[in-house]
Amino acid sequence: MNFCSHCGHRVQFAIPDGDDRPRYLCEACGTIHYQNPRIVAGTLPVRGSKILLCRRAIPPRKGYWTLPAGFMENAETTVEAAARETQEEACADVSIHGLYTLINLPHINQVYMIFRADLDGGFDAGPESLEVALFEEHEIPWEELAFPTIERTLRHFYQDRLSDDYPLHISDITPEDRERYFGSA
Amino acid sequence: MNFCSHCGHRVQFAIPDGDDRPRYLCEACGTIHYQNPRIVAGTLPVRGSKILLCRRAIPPRKGYWTLPAGFMENAETTVEAAARETQEEACADVSIHGLYTLINLPHINQVYMIFRADLDGGFDAGPESLEVALFEEHEIPWEELAFPTIERTLRHFYQDRLSDDYPLHISDITPEDRERYFGSA
Repeated sequence: MNFCSHCGHRVQFAIPDGDDRPRYLCEACGTIHYQNPRIVAGTLPVRGSKILLCRRAIPPRKGYWTLPAGFMENAETTVEAAARETQEEACADVSIHGLYTLINLPHINQVYMIFRADLDGGFDAGPESLEVALFEEHEIPWEELAFPTIERTLRHFYQDRLSDDYPLHISDITPEDRERYFGSA
Repeated sequence: MNFCSHCGHRVQFAIPDGDDRPRYLCEACGTIHYQNPRIVAGTLPVRGSKILLCRRAIPPRKGYWTLPAGFMENAETTVEAAARETQEEACADVSIHGLYTLINLPHINQVYMIFRADLDGGFDAGPESLEVALFEEHEIPWEELAFPTIERTLRHFYQDRLSDDYPLHISDITPEDRERYFGSA
């Protein structure tokens, strides 16, 4: 951020009065430009013993497999965001169950929220996907998953499926967790 | 948003190529300025049969009672944000349990995430609180709560306490839900 989005004046990066961390400040109009983490909402779509994955048609991690997920938009709920992303990326309708994984990525200011879901009807590759397919557990392309959040969510799912109990899993992903995904990408 | 925060040029509000909704666009440098919901993280601090509330020293809803909560910052996790807000508003350390309420407020682009917590040690009013106190259920100032998210979280807690089982509750708050809080405030 270089300029004030309200008045166009050049901003400073300094600690406002009464605050405890630096912000982008406009001394011309007084606006403080707060920056906050973004939510990535998505689903784990299940049909019988199979789960749905999408192969990414766009960066980052083009060509790698992911669960349908993307940035939550203003004016929608987390459940609506997860369903919308599933429709956009996999042309699929889902019936959403509970929140399943909540994964913090503080080094990139993201919070992943993946909901378990039943896949309703058909599916197809949306514009951001090269292909969309159903996988049995032994077919999961573990070495070709796009993001560590996706791998972690799938690992939880196959572990929890043994007991048919799917509690919410809250965890963090560090830069080290990401290294093997992005070091070679 | 009137000006591009990257280059200072005046922005347009239009649908980018390949997108499905209007964004703030800079035709000078090509930046698309996405805007996304913010997370409000906080705790429901419990000590024995009592819970901790803070009376707000700042707008909005100055003078009304709330659970300690506030906007999640970049570079922290949701649990860290909830603990930090509890320290700032109530000078209190907490041991955080699971996520308890996840409440979408799509009309104001917020997602509340309140964690159940045990209150450790003492407490005091931080700079954003007029006072901080422990309440038995019959002492809760229901008519003087700051936000509908707070009332809803407390109602869930007292209901769930009957069975000592505290599942995650996901729900939405509409403008109508807020009306009686803000109509007279």
